[in-house]
Amino acid sequence: MSSINVLFLMLGAVMILAMHAGFAFLEAGSVSRKNQVNAFNKIIFDWSVTTVAYFIIGFPISYGIVLYTNNSLFTQQNGIELVRFFFLLGFAACIPAIISGGVVGRMKFFTQSLAAVFLGGVIYPLFESLVWGQNSFMGQKGSFFEKIFGAPFHDFAGSVVVHSLGGWIALAAIIILGPRKGRFGGRFNTRPSNIPFLTLGSWILIVGWFGFNVMSAQNVNAISGLVVLNSLMAMVGGTMSGLIFSKNDVGFTHNGALAGLIAICAGSDVVHPFAALFIGAIAGLIFIIFFELETKWKIDDVLGVWPLHGINGTWGGIAAGIFGRKALGGVYDLSFMSQLTGSLLALVYAFAAGFVLYKVIDAVAGIRISEQEELVGTDLTFHRIDANPEQTL
Amino acid sequence: MSSINVLFLMLGAVMILAMHAGFAFLEAGSVSRKNQVNAFNKIIFDWSVTTVAYFIIGFPISYGIVLYTNNSLFTQQNGIELVRFFFLLGFAACIPAIISGGVVGRMKFFTQSLAAVFLGGVIYPLFESLVWGQNSFMGQKGSFFEKIFGAPFHDFAGSVVVHSLGGWIALAAIIILGPRKGRFGGRFNTRPSNIPFLTLGSWILIVGWFGFNVMSAQNVNAISGLVVLNSLMAMVGGTMSGLIFSKNDVGFTHNGALAGLIAICAGSDVVHPFAALFIGAIAGLIFIIFFELETKWKIDDVLGVWPLHGINGTWGGIAAGIFGRKALGGVYDLSFMSQLTGSLLALVYAFAAGFVLYKVIDAVAGIRISEQEELVGTDLTFHRIDANPEQTL
Amino acid sequence: MSSINVLFLMLGAVMILAMHAGFAFLEAGSVSRKNQVNAFNKIIFDWSVTTVAYFIIGFPISYGIVLYTNNSLFTQQNGIELVRFFFLLGFAACIPAIISGGVVGRMKFFTQSLAAVFLGGVIYPLFESLVWGQNSFMGQKGSFFEKIFGAPFHDFAGSVVVHSLGGWIALAAIIILGPRKGRFGGRFNTRPSNIPFLTLGSWILIVGWFGFNVMSAQNVNAISGLVVLNSLMAMVGGTMSGLIFSKNDVGFTHNGALAGLIAICAGSDVVHPFAALFIGAIAGLIFIIFFELETKWKIDDVLGVWPLHGINGTWGGIAAGIFGRKALGGVYDLSFMSQLTGSLLALVYAFAAGFVLYKVIDAVAGIRISEQEELVGTDLTFHRIDANPEQTL
Repeated sequence: MSSINVLFLMLGAVMILAMHAGFAFLEAGSVSRKNQVNAFNKIIFDWSVTTVAYFIIGFPISYGIVLYTNNSLFTQQNGIELVRFFFLLGFAACIPAIISGGVVGRMKFFTQSLAAVFLGGVIYPLFESLVWGQNSFMGQKGSFFEKIFGAPFHDFAGSVVVHSLGGWIALAAIIILGPRKGRFGGRFNTRPSNIPFLTLGSWILIVGWFGFNVMSAQNVNAISGLVVLNSLMAMVGGTMSGLIFSKNDVGFTHNGALAGLIAICAGSDVVHPFAALFIGAIAGLIFIIFFELETKWKIDDVLGVWPLHGINGTWGGIAAGIFGRKALGGVYDLSFMSQLTGSLLALVYAFAAGFVLYKVIDAVAGIRISEQEELVGTDLTFHRIDANPEQTL
Repeated sequence: MSSINVLFLMLGAVMILAMHAGFAFLEAGSVSRKNQVNAFNKIIFDWSVTTVAYFIIGFPISYGIVLYTNNSLFTQQNGIELVRFFFLLGFAACIPAIISGGVVGRMKFFTQSLAAVFLGGVIYPLFESLVWGQNSFMGQKGSFFEKIFGAPFHDFAGSVVVHSLGGWIALAAIIILGPRKGRFGGRFNTRPSNIPFLTLGSWILIVGWFGFNVMSAQNVNAISGLVVLNSLMAMVGGTMSGLIFSKNDVGFTHNGALAGLIAICAGSDVVHPFAALFIGAIAGLIFIIFFELETKWKIDDVLGVWPLHGINGTWGGIAAGIFGRKALGGVYDLSFMSQLTGSLLALVYAFAAGFVLYKVIDAVAGIRISEQEELVGTDLTFHRIDANPEQTL
Repeated sequence: MSSINVLFLMLGAVMILAMHAGFAFLEAGSVSRKNQVNAFNKIIFDWSVTTVAYFIIGFPISYGIVLYTNNSLFTQQNGIELVRFFFLLGFAACIPAIISGGVVGRMKFFTQSLAAVFLGGVIYPLFESLVWGQNSFMGQKGSFFEKIFGAPFHDFAGSVVVHSLGGWIALAAIIILGPRKGRFGGRFNTRPSNIPFLTLGSWILIVGWFGFNVMSAQNVNAISGLVVLNSLMAMVGGTMSGLIFSKNDVGFTHNGALAGLIAICAGSDVVHPFAALFIGAIAGLIFIIFFELETKWKIDDVLGVWPLHGINGTWGGIAAGIFGRKALGGVYDLSFMSQLTGSLLALVYAFAAGFVLYKVIDAVAGIRISEQEELVGTDLTFHRIDANPEQTL
């Protein structure tokens, strides 16, 4: 059985690894052509940096297990702890990948990678430990939250722990960084460079998401068909509302699917499939409304990662508290107050930690590129090449 | 064991979900650049519409199981019925995705989505129930077909139930819709817009197909290595004949692989691997011949979905009756007459149902866009954006 | 249990099949735009040719099992031998796919396919049989190598058997073929045509690699979390060194990930995760150094397949002998001399066999296209179409 669990977690881990190609294409397709190459190198390098940071510091913080000094873990139960690390790393690595889509076009390459060290090594694991890890504060049976609210804070697959954390840290980074030169006022081309790449990224994320959600059971015996179906339903709800409320816009449609999936992570093992459809539909609408408010509020969040991951992550955490009760067709009763408090706590923690982190890095090393570099684009600035080099030579 | 079956079916379901990205890229690459965005939004929206229609009406019609009123199914045997629904939905959703490639460039967006409601809710499930479902007419042990022909109609993974149904309905829609303005006579650019996207779509479909065919066992204990190998062999046969008979054309080569896979679905658990190679090779050739005949006959089937899915689906159903016998190296004896009758019945049903459906929708809401919209392209018409918006602003 | 093993091997086989789409996109993105279509048709056709050759001749040579004359294998243990064939075919088919990236732009289409027949039918299986197959010379318990060196030659997932073989055969082909007209001296545009396609190819390969390495256990009970983690670590090491030593070049970064994965195949089940990180990092550096030396030495290896697969494959085989010992944190003791000898033997065999094969094919049928065809490009020469046909009409 341990061998099948290794297979189970490994499939989930690989599906989440694949999602990072999705992040890269979603970003490359959504940004200006002069920032495409940068998207690709950022995503794969920040994944790599996060792997090392989470392996050495983060995973031990969250779960109290040090893999590299205990060789017996390499073979115990087919080495399952090693695969569990890989699976959970995939979640940690979403944090810089989410932020990447918000800060694109004016952030320095290596200071963003430096941020990834602290995000994957400390900031994310600290919160993770409270919900899923060794610290019995919020998510565990017998936790402080359970004692106060009657039920622990429930986040099955990371609406709050992963997505809202990433999205709200991104908001802090975006505010500190400031908007791209000329973004608000004057002529500025905000249109995506490549719709097929955008949709490819979205599809890769959608498909990989089933590894993200389903394998969060972490044990094949705990696999839940309800999680599978609810993930599908929320994706469908987000797609439909994204398309309908945007009057058939391709970006809102394909991001709507993601919005639905983000919002369902928390309660996917609890709510009724029709509730999942509704949660997803609201998420698709939330994304449209706040993406447009961001422009009004002059928040230059290029891919809309704050509404997509931040607000919808928070919505997912709270929605699990609304629909995750037997009276509304769910399979057991969550606590609304526990969900609300936990979701708000995550939001405050993420924004504050992100604010401090990016402020410090800015003071120490500078986070913003020069106006001239911004104009030329991050591709030529950092990588001395654009997306179609043969043609542009 | 039920947990492993949930994993098994879930992997199949996700692989088929991924195939829909393949449908989108195959279409986007094959059509004019002015219809690429439309391909993406159609595929993901029609998937969503089909999900809801098949969940509420279609699946209950086919299998007599209503998932949303029976919460005990959410947890029974790890919720396996919910995952079975997702897996079978993947097949239903192929119907609008197949049709999409035939009617592209002149069909209204929302009337096509409306058609998807009836296709996934009623037309497909009615036939599905006869072969795989609760109605013991064709495919079941003790069915009417078995009594008459000595063996039930056998369609392991949907050559007939899925592909021929989709392809022959598409033919009806294409005829009712009529050709694109100027397609036959005058100068008309029929060349594909983007070969890499076309091949990407084909590869995604090829890879996902192994979920389509292998997981059709629906139970991991019934998994068959022969199905795996025969799928490979038919893909290889279709690729080779597609390449050779088209003198190395990239479109026929990559569609040839799909032609082979379509034709092998029905008999993949029965025939000898060399028979699978041959069935695939004939399928690749059928696609070339009928694709060229369509031009001669002035049938404006943009991606050639009628020969690809329709004729090759029928060929697959019949081929199982020819090669699916021990005398020809198969593992058990199917009935040729049963296969022939069932395949022809499907063809007639699909064409007739498709004809009525699209005629009615046309009369009620209109299915064709204006000449001006056709000229401008469906991207700008429906989505106010083209595939490379930054560049074209 | 046999059913789960069929699932296990089938998932690995399908992941390796998907890698071939990765080879196609990596090549299409790295080469000139005039050779993109050719990349796609070569990869899928050579896969097909290899399937037939390995099915009929190669697999029987390696493992002594003839699948097509023994129908009882179709159903025995769920037909596991058939799926094992598919899984191992995936490795064999890497040989022409690797070579493809070296000889692109001036090799005849059908002579390359002819070479694939001999590569997949004879040259690869002969060596495979020595390490993994029925011939107890190098890799088996009780083999000649074990008697001499104290431990058999160990190549868990093919650093040597697959990658070095492909890379060193490619070197022979590249030398016989000679450089593209004007490549050394004069103005010649060597810049890649499409970075997004290059990175897509790399990502598909990275993701599929976990099937390549993990399923090499060939039995789910033998699945190893250490293999999973080490594959990740080597990919990360290769990415980081590729990026750092190339000063943030996107091609070296994404090929660096592959370099790491190639080098870890051999010892992934043995070495410590930090050793895997180091092996990967060295591999990323090796690729950069030798890719640049190739230019200096006037070896026109378009994608750098000799350093990537050849030298790094050899490095992987030797590295397993260095780090694959308990004293350095590994889980058991390999023999350095066994690894060194085996790796060098593979190199000599591959280069010699490749040299003879391509010399003979050149003498019999000619391997090089005309200067005029080279100038026009292989797309128009062989496929009468370029990558964006609508636009170029």
